[in-house]
Amino acid sequence: MVKLAIFGVGRIGQVHAQNIYRHPNACLDSIYDINFSEASIVAQKFGAKIKTEEEIFSDDTIQGVIICSPTNTHTDLVIKAIASKKAILCEKPLALDMKDVNNCIEHLNKTDARLLLGFQRRFDPSFKKLEESIRENKLGNIHTLIISSRDPSLPSEKYLTTSGGIFRDMMIHDFDIVLWLLKERINEMYVLGSNKSSPDYVERLDDFCIASVMMKTEGGTVVYINNARQTTYGYDQRLEIFGSNGMLQIENNKRSSLIVYDNTGVVSEKPIDYFIKRYQEAYTNEMDHFIDDIIISGKTPLISAIDGKYSLELAEKAHAIAIGKNNL
Amino acid sequence: MVKLAIFGVGRIGQVHAQNIYRHPNACLDSIYDINFSEASIVAQKFGAKIKTEEEIFSDDTIQGVIICSPTNTHTDLVIKAIASKKAILCEKPLALDMKDVNNCIEHLNKTDARLLLGFQRRFDPSFKKLEESIRENKLGNIHTLIISSRDPSLPSEKYLTTSGGIFRDMMIHDFDIVLWLLKERINEMYVLGSNKSSPDYVERLDDFCIASVMMKTEGGTVVYINNARQTTYGYDQRLEIFGSNGMLQIENNKRSSLIVYDNTGVVSEKPIDYFIKRYQEAYTNEMDHFIDDIIISGKTPLISAIDGKYSLELAEKAHAIAIGKNNL
Amino acid sequence: MVKLAIFGVGRIGQVHAQNIYRHPNACLDSIYDINFSEASIVAQKFGAKIKTEEEIFSDDTIQGVIICSPTNTHTDLVIKAIASKKAILCEKPLALDMKDVNNCIEHLNKTDARLLLGFQRRFDPSFKKLEESIRENKLGNIHTLIISSRDPSLPSEKYLTTSGGIFRDMMIHDFDIVLWLLKERINEMYVLGSNKSSPDYVERLDDFCIASVMMKTEGGTVVYINNARQTTYGYDQRLEIFGSNGMLQIENNKRSSLIVYDNTGVVSEKPIDYFIKRYQEAYTNEMDHFIDDIIISGKTPLISAIDGKYSLELAEKAHAIAIGKNNL
Amino acid sequence: MVKLAIFGVGRIGQVHAQNIYRHPNACLDSIYDINFSEASIVAQKFGAKIKTEEEIFSDDTIQGVIICSPTNTHTDLVIKAIASKKAILCEKPLALDMKDVNNCIEHLNKTDARLLLGFQRRFDPSFKKLEESIRENKLGNIHTLIISSRDPSLPSEKYLTTSGGIFRDMMIHDFDIVLWLLKERINEMYVLGSNKSSPDYVERLDDFCIASVMMKTEGGTVVYINNARQTTYGYDQRLEIFGSNGMLQIENNKRSSLIVYDNTGVVSEKPIDYFIKRYQEAYTNEMDHFIDDIIISGKTPLISAIDGKYSLELAEKAHAIAIGKNNL
Repeated sequence: MVKLAIFGVGRIGQVHAQNIYRHPNACLDSIYDINFSEASIVAQKFGAKIKTEEEIFSDDTIQGVIICSPTNTHTDLVIKAIASKKAILCEKPLALDMKDVNNCIEHLNKTDARLLLGFQRRFDPSFKKLEESIRENKLGNIHTLIISSRDPSLPSEKYLTTSGGIFRDMMIHDFDIVLWLLKERINEMYVLGSNKSSPDYVERLDDFCIASVMMKTEGGTVVYINNARQTTYGYDQRLEIFGSNGMLQIENNKRSSLIVYDNTGVVSEKPIDYFIKRYQEAYTNEMDHFIDDIIISGKTPLISAIDGKYSLELAEKAHAIAIGKNNL
Repeated sequence: MVKLAIFGVGRIGQVHAQNIYRHPNACLDSIYDINFSEASIVAQKFGAKIKTEEEIFSDDTIQGVIICSPTNTHTDLVIKAIASKKAILCEKPLALDMKDVNNCIEHLNKTDARLLLGFQRRFDPSFKKLEESIRENKLGNIHTLIISSRDPSLPSEKYLTTSGGIFRDMMIHDFDIVLWLLKERINEMYVLGSNKSSPDYVERLDDFCIASVMMKTEGGTVVYINNARQTTYGYDQRLEIFGSNGMLQIENNKRSSLIVYDNTGVVSEKPIDYFIKRYQEAYTNEMDHFIDDIIISGKTPLISAIDGKYSLELAEKAHAIAIGKNNL
Repeated sequence: MVKLAIFGVGRIGQVHAQNIYRHPNACLDSIYDINFSEASIVAQKFGAKIKTEEEIFSDDTIQGVIICSPTNTHTDLVIKAIASKKAILCEKPLALDMKDVNNCIEHLNKTDARLLLGFQRRFDPSFKKLEESIRENKLGNIHTLIISSRDPSLPSEKYLTTSGGIFRDMMIHDFDIVLWLLKERINEMYVLGSNKSSPDYVERLDDFCIASVMMKTEGGTVVYINNARQTTYGYDQRLEIFGSNGMLQIENNKRSSLIVYDNTGVVSEKPIDYFIKRYQEAYTNEMDHFIDDIIISGKTPLISAIDGKYSLELAEKAHAIAIGKNNL
Repeated sequence: MVKLAIFGVGRIGQVHAQNIYRHPNACLDSIYDINFSEASIVAQKFGAKIKTEEEIFSDDTIQGVIICSPTNTHTDLVIKAIASKKAILCEKPLALDMKDVNNCIEHLNKTDARLLLGFQRRFDPSFKKLEESIRENKLGNIHTLIISSRDPSLPSEKYLTTSGGIFRDMMIHDFDIVLWLLKERINEMYVLGSNKSSPDYVERLDDFCIASVMMKTEGGTVVYINNARQTTYGYDQRLEIFGSNGMLQIENNKRSSLIVYDNTGVVSEKPIDYFIKRYQEAYTNEMDHFIDDIIISGKTPLISAIDGKYSLELAEKAHAIAIGKNNL
């Protein structure tokens, strides 16, 4: 039985707790969260103990830790976890600051510690199948990659204040997908942000509710990404990749397969409205990879700290351009 | 230039007039309709003359006639057209009465006259492609054929009084499709009619607004057809045919390719709401077959009077069962 | 913590074990299966004990049992579970024989024992939402209900020998859905079976690979159901219900949302090919209903033994007609 | 009867000839084309005469001319048509050169001559309905507009040599749609071109097979357009426009509504592969607007020479950036 601990049991921490609980060969030993009452509820639900950071890191029977506490705590926890020789599943981003990311990578390089960065989309069945098709060269020369990622509703001012901005908070997922699918460096980048329908606090925070990025890879592939902080119609996650042999698309997953025909039209269900539900199977696959492949079988993590560095670099660049209005 | 005449310029007659007008090698010479003022309008629009029956049949330069007058006039006109050696495009049904149908067939058999029966669906691109796939044995053994045909809105009492009932008026199209696709005799037939939401006059006329038929062919294929006299969502025309190698479906054609995403759902357009618009391309193909293949090239009509007889036989049987409540 | 036991840990028993395991307020105490080695593997996986029937029924701390052993053992286990005052989740069918079903119902009627019959489709999000729409009278007068249920691949001769035939084994699910949605008695029934592409053993067992039923309810709704034992394209589960206000459809759930455009066409994924995956969420909801609503909150089961009796009656009738070729 | 003449009877000229022929209140009087034998065939087909430029412009009974000769002849013909007081339907672009466009506009401004520029997409039912929804403010604040326009196959070197490049030849359609839908000036523009899979002659001509443009309007709407000279899967024409109230999409029109289910997947038809077929209804509506609204009713053309100037300005700017690699 693989014993695990979780730092931070907000909504994503609870998803991980559930996926550990469900796994036949793993158990959730312990939880740390600064919100003690929330931690207690989750601990009781999954039969885990509440422990201090020190207790967790000094317990050699705990083989892995899942870090889903606020981003500004990631670096410290990652370095301690490396020191205590535990496998690490760390939520994205590794850090908001490149210095911290590099710090983590240096510590990782000095040991054989293994860190899986939590870009869960790569574990989604549709994304996995698309990526396999690209590896099998189904598309020929790739010409254009278009990603639309739109959240269902605007986060609170409090959340946005520490989020790092739309590029580091949201578009970093899309940058990771771009790098994963294309395996190429980015040579050119243009960025546009907009706040047409945003409440004042968004602009005050130097953030955007709408963001668009157009890029060109070193090999000449054109990439376009658009993000929005809110839609009226649910969580919108689509991708298309077009090449000399054809095109692959990922469409939204609908809430159910019910269709209504009446005198107003033919009405299908809206896309699933919550990322945790949309990527439920991805989170399960991610945890299985962490437990089965990384901890039990000793395999290399599919998403490394270096991957996190590359996507953060693009996010930082895009943010700087959007704020400064000067292009690459 | 092939000279043609039309009997009856109601809505379907006008479609044919338009398709002749459009054809580079044919012209609409003349029109006969008991409604003189309607005939005048259509004649002027397409540069045709108004003539009597006698004038039309005695004019040897007219090579073909299109019969789309009321069904009770079909037999008489068909027999006169045969006598005057004209090619015939006759709207379905050939007649409401089997004796009349047989009468037409006898006259046809005595000459080399050629009659094309107007089951226009066979000329629709989707239906044609489906039929070709079946001929190429893409389905293997055919197990089940399901047809849904629903009209957008209930006809008037006056129309229903002379329509011959839902089986002879509507389902005859579906019977023709069944016979065309399967090329087999029907061994068993069960019929259900219903008038749950119908105005009184429908039942008073021994007719139905809802009709369902289940049949088995001599080769063991199960066929299910359902008809409805009205929907709230447009003209509904779907078909699926399932066999040992897979399934083929024909879906509805939508009014446009616009899709609306909002907080009520994902709303596509309703199916096209009018059979003349839905089968616009089919009617054009049908007229091209009449002019190019039958009149100019002397080929055999794709849909013969015998085909009309077979589908009428099934319609009569279904009607008798539905009225009499006694199954085959 | 609600303690539960499972009888029979074949593929469906293991789904239930997983869903109990996952539930925060329930645990799988014990397992009984005549296949001891299989039972051991499952027991170890979920931390359950292997017990005898007697041990399970005599243990008052076990509040509920899940019966997914072969159908011929259901009656005996249900009656023992009633006697030992345990809540029961019994896989369909309750029994293959009406006498046994009645026997179970009599025992249930004498106590306040609660039995949930495992027609899992009713717990599927699409089916639930469709049923709610019907309850809210979104359809007006219901005219036609069409259900297609096709399994991906033909079962072995051994399975078919004890399955009770396609009507009791497969179509019973569809009959349950019909009765649940329409809440009406069936007045007329026509049945067609076919074995065009079946191996000999199917016919030898008086069974069918293709089955179609057309029925009329007392209120005049027409129902058509078609079943097939195998497709080439996955597990096919569709439904449409048409009324005076519009139509509701349930479409298949696809394996992923990937779409491929190339010179052969626009290729979507096949429907999910396994009922346990297709109805994964339904099985979870079903277990939650059993644990949370029935055991913990003492509510009435959503699907009762009487429901099982009604659907079995229709299945028996359909089987008799298909075999005897005599209609109702 | 409105008498019309056509300059140039290539593929698009023949579409216009057919649509005039079909119109009940118009006739094709005459044709001019430097290819005499082609002109003869078309003239005979539609009962038109072959005339010289002079004969056409000096004939006062000809009320309108359709100009679909090569682009370098447009300006001269437009100015002559203005002088002879004929209504003008001119294929896009009005000219390849801004000086010529301005020249046309000056001549138009001095008279009450009316010119309809042939951006046929605005007459497509899906585009029209989308535009109406925007006018009715269904979208609220518009945030993002994404257009994909991809041709089915690469034109010949000869065609490309005189086409003016992908931005003036293809993307000008998309620029027109952007300006029509948003009715705003463009403040920022970024351009990327690529020739990854192109034959050498494309690059030699300073042209591109792949082009992407990202723009921002004065009001803050982000626009992204991507073009490709060839696909493997047909003519690809999609658009989405996203605002604070929801999203509108235009999907491709498929070749038929047939769907094939087999062991390889669920295969729909490819998009229609030819722009004349895809926009068949648009061309008919365009000609009806020219004849009925502009010539007969004296209304203002829906697409003016000024519209042509604005879209050409964007195309020229995009071309200059792509060639020069310097952004706005």
